Amino acid sequence: MQQVNLGMIGGGTVGGGVYKALRENGDLLASRAGVRIHLIKIAAKAFDEPRKVHIPHSLLTTDWKSVVEHPEVQVVAELAGGTTVARDMILTALRLGKPVVTANKALLSAHGEELFAAARQFGANLYYEASVAGGIPIIKALREGFIGNRIVRLYGIVNGTCNYILTRMKEEGAEFADVLADAQRLGYAEAEPSLDIDGHDSLHKIGILASLAHGFWVDPARIHCEGIRDLARLDLEFAGRLGYTIKLLGVVKLMGAAVGRARGKTRSRLVQVAVYPALVPNAHVLASVSHSFNAVFVRGDVVGDTLFYGRGAGQDPTASAVLSDLADAALDLKYQTRSRIPPFVPHERDGQVLPMAEAVSRYYLRLSVVDRPGVLAKVAAVLARNRIGISSVIQPEGHEGESVPLILMIHDAPNRAMTRALGQINRLSVVKAAPVMIRVENFE
Amino acid sequence: MQQVNLGMIGGGTVGGGVYKALRENGDLLASRAGVRIHLIKIAAKAFDEPRKVHIPHSLLTTDWKSVVEHPEVQVVAELAGGTTVARDMILTALRLGKPVVTANKALLSAHGEELFAAARQFGANLYYEASVAGGIPIIKALREGFIGNRIVRLYGIVNGTCNYILTRMKEEGAEFADVLADAQRLGYAEAEPSLDIDGHDSLHKIGILASLAHGFWVDPARIHCEGIRDLARLDLEFAGRLGYTIKLLGVVKLMGAAVGRARGKTRSRLVQVAVYPALVPNAHVLASVSHSFNAVFVRGDVVGDTLFYGRGAGQDPTASAVLSDLADAALDLKYQTRSRIPPFVPHERDGQVLPMAEAVSRYYLRLSVVDRPGVLAKVAAVLARNRIGISSVIQPEGHEGESVPLILMIHDAPNRAMTRALGQINRLSVVKAAPVMIRVENFE
Repeated sequence: MQQVNLGMIGGGTVGGGVYKALRENGDLLASRAGVRIHLIKIAAKAFDEPRKVHIPHSLLTTDWKSVVEHPEVQVVAELAGGTTVARDMILTALRLGKPVVTANKALLSAHGEELFAAARQFGANLYYEASVAGGIPIIKALREGFIGNRIVRLYGIVNGTCNYILTRMKEEGAEFADVLADAQRLGYAEAEPSLDIDGHDSLHKIGILASLAHGFWVDPARIHCEGIRDLARLDLEFAGRLGYTIKLLGVVKLMGAAVGRARGKTRSRLVQVAVYPALVPNAHVLASVSHSFNAVFVRGDVVGDTLFYGRGAGQDPTASAVLSDLADAALDLKYQTRSRIPPFVPHERDGQVLPMAEAVSRYYLRLSVVDRPGVLAKVAAVLARNRIGISSVIQPEGHEGESVPLILMIHDAPNRAMTRALGQINRLSVVKAAPVMIRVENFE
Repeated sequence: MQQVNLGMIGGGTVGGGVYKALRENGDLLASRAGVRIHLIKIAAKAFDEPRKVHIPHSLLTTDWKSVVEHPEVQVVAELAGGTTVARDMILTALRLGKPVVTANKALLSAHGEELFAAARQFGANLYYEASVAGGIPIIKALREGFIGNRIVRLYGIVNGTCNYILTRMKEEGAEFADVLADAQRLGYAEAEPSLDIDGHDSLHKIGILASLAHGFWVDPARIHCEGIRDLARLDLEFAGRLGYTIKLLGVVKLMGAAVGRARGKTRSRLVQVAVYPALVPNAHVLASVSHSFNAVFVRGDVVGDTLFYGRGAGQDPTASAVLSDLADAALDLKYQTRSRIPPFVPHERDGQVLPMAEAVSRYYLRLSVVDRPGVLAKVAAVLARNRIGISSVIQPEGHEGESVPLILMIHDAPNRAMTRALGQINRLSVVKAAPVMIRVENFE
C-alpha cells in the first residue's frame, strides 16, 4: 500500500491526540483510504513536556524547521497554535509544495487570505476541518455536502466554554462570575478567559464558516462581536419564563433573497456576520445543545434545515478532524490532485458584510428601574419616539430594593435605532443601571 | 471551465428536484467545484407526466438506454427507483465505464454487493449520498469525516413517515391507525404504507450505514426488523410518564470492545444491526427529533458523540445530496480519479451480525391483565424463572373494563430469554392480550 510521510508540529494536547489516534486507528484508516499515513517526526517545545499521551523521544525534535524541511516529509500538520511562528511554519511548508493540515482558527482568521493565496501559488493545499467545531465535519459538509446550496442561514454554537457556562447558569440559577470561577477550577475555562467569553474564538470560527459559505473573505474586523460577560442569572431566568434559552451564537444571514429583494440587485450579496448572545426558542434544536457541546445549524436553499452536533474541542475530537484532513491530503498526494478542492474558492467577489447598525432583529431588554408608577410610560415614550414597537412587558413581583427589573420584548427593529433608544433610556432618571439588551432569534 | 455531461433517468419527484436545483444553482456549483455539470437528457416514463417542476420536452425521452448509452453522456443519475429495471440501468452505465449517482436505497440494500463489484470491475464509481437520510451528508461523514474512527454506536431515525406518526401520536394522544389515515390523506404516508411503517425502508438504510461503518456487507436478511404498527397511544403515554419518547430506531452497535471483550477475540467483530421502536430518554438529543425530520447519531471511538439532523426525504433535500454526488463524480472525471473513494471498502472481511436472540437490552413491557390481586406475583414468577429482573412496575389507576394495563420496566436481558418469558406470560390465564414489548435504549 502506498504510504505518505507525515511531519507534525506540536506535541501538546492536539498533537498527542493525533499521535494516539494514528497509533490506534492508523491501520483502519489505511484500509479504508487505500493509503497509509506514516508519522516520521514531531516537533515539540521540549522533549519532556508533561503529556497525557507518551510520545517516544525517537520521534521528537525541538526544531520545527527540520520537520517541515525533512526531505521525506510529504505532509505537514501544524498543531502548535499561535499566530506568529505558526504562520511561518505553514508558509514554509506550502513554499516547499507540501500540503498542510491545521487546527488553528486564530491563525486562519488573522491570515487566512494570505495562507490560501500561498497554497494556490505553490500548488500545495491547506486543510482545516479541525479549526471549527472540533470533531464535527462541518467544513466538509459546507464545501462538499452542500456544494449545490446557497447557504441562507447559518447559526453556530462554536465555543464550548461559553455554552458550558450558560448551561450551568441556567440549570443552577447561578451568576456568571461564580460559574466562570468554577469552570476555571475544573479546567473548562482558561485562566485568561477573554478569548472565549468575549466571543473572539467564536468570531474566528464563524468568520471561517461565513467565508466558505458565501465565497468572499470575511474580514474579522467587520464581524460584530459581543460576549457573555454581561449576562446575569436574571436574564437566563426571565428568558426561561418566556420560553427561551440563551446561547452565544455565531450568526451568518444572507440578506437579499430573504430580506433585501425589494432593495434591488446591488444589495443581494450582503451577508450579516456576527457573534452575540441570543434568546433561542426552547422548541428550536439549538436550544437543546448543552454543556460543552457545539452545534452548527445550516439552512440551505435546497436542503432546508440541518444541524451538525458534537464535541467542539478536546484532544480526541480535534484529532478525529485532523485524521480526516490527513486522509484527504494523502489521497490528493496519491492521485496527484492537490488542488481538487482548494482551501477557499472566492466565488462571490463583491460580497459584503452588512453593517451591524443596519441589522434588524427582535430584542429582549432588561432595565433596572425605580419601583414607582409612570416608569413604563417614560420608557415606552422613548421607544415610540425611535419607532420601536413593544411586544410584551414583564414587571416581576417579589423583587425588593432600590431598583426593580423591568423586562421588555421588542418587535423587529434596526440595531441603530435600538442603540440610540438605549442611550436615551439610560439617561432617564428612573433607570438605575445600564440597560441589558439581548437579541431574540426567531430563525426565520 | 471544464464541463461534464449528465444523463438522468427519472423525471418524477427527485428527477424534477435535481433538474430545478441544477437550473437554479448550477452556476454556483460550477464556480465552487471548478467543473460544470451539463444536463443533456432525461429519461422519463412519459413526456406528459404531471410534474411540479416543468421539464422541457426537448430534454425528455422515454428510452433510458438512449440516455445511458448516449456517446456524450459521461455521468448517469439513476433516479427512477425500483429494484429491477434500475439495476439494469446502473449495470449498463457501469459497464460503459460511466460513473452513476443513485438515490435508490431499496436497490442498494438488495443488490449493493453486485453493484459495488461492478463499479470496481469496470473502473467506474457509484455514489449514493441521497439513498440514506435525504439531504443529510451522512455517507460523506462516515466515509470521509470519520475515516479515522471506529464507529462504536450508530442510531438512526431514518424514516420520516414513522417519525411523523410517532410525533403526532405523542403530541395528540392519538392512536396509530387514526394518525396513519390522516398522514395518508396529507400525503405523508403511502396508500400502501408497509414499506415505511413495518420498518423495511429503515432496514434498507441502516444496512447501508452499517456496511459502510464496519467494512463488511451486512446481508439485509440478517437485520432484525420491527415496525411501529403495534404501538398504542397508551405506550407513548406511559413512556412519557417514565421520561421517554418512543422512536423507530435503526441500531448499529459494535460488540467486542464495549461488550464482548471478555468473550475473546473471535467475537470482536460482531455487530448488532437492527430496526425497532425504542424508548429514548427525553434528555437524549434523538428524543427531540420530531415530525418528518431524520437524524443519525454516531459515536466514534475518537470523535465521541455526534448528531446529524435534517430532512430525510422530499424533492429538494434529496436533490441537494444528488448534487453533492454529481460534484464528486465530476471532479473524479476531471482529475481522472474514478476510484479515489470507492463505493464500498470491505476492510473487515470477517465481520458478522449478532443474532438478535443474543442481543441484550432493557425492555418496557405492557400487559393487559385482569384487575385482581396476585396478577403481578404470577408475572414476576415467570420473569424470575427466566432470570429476568424487574426494575419498576406501574399499575395505573383509572382504567376500567375487563382488563387493565400493567407496565413493567425490565433490566438488561438477552432477547432470547425475553421471547421465552413473553410466551409463558401470554399463556397465563390472567393475561388478556398479547404482551407489548418495546426495547429501552440507554445509549451506553
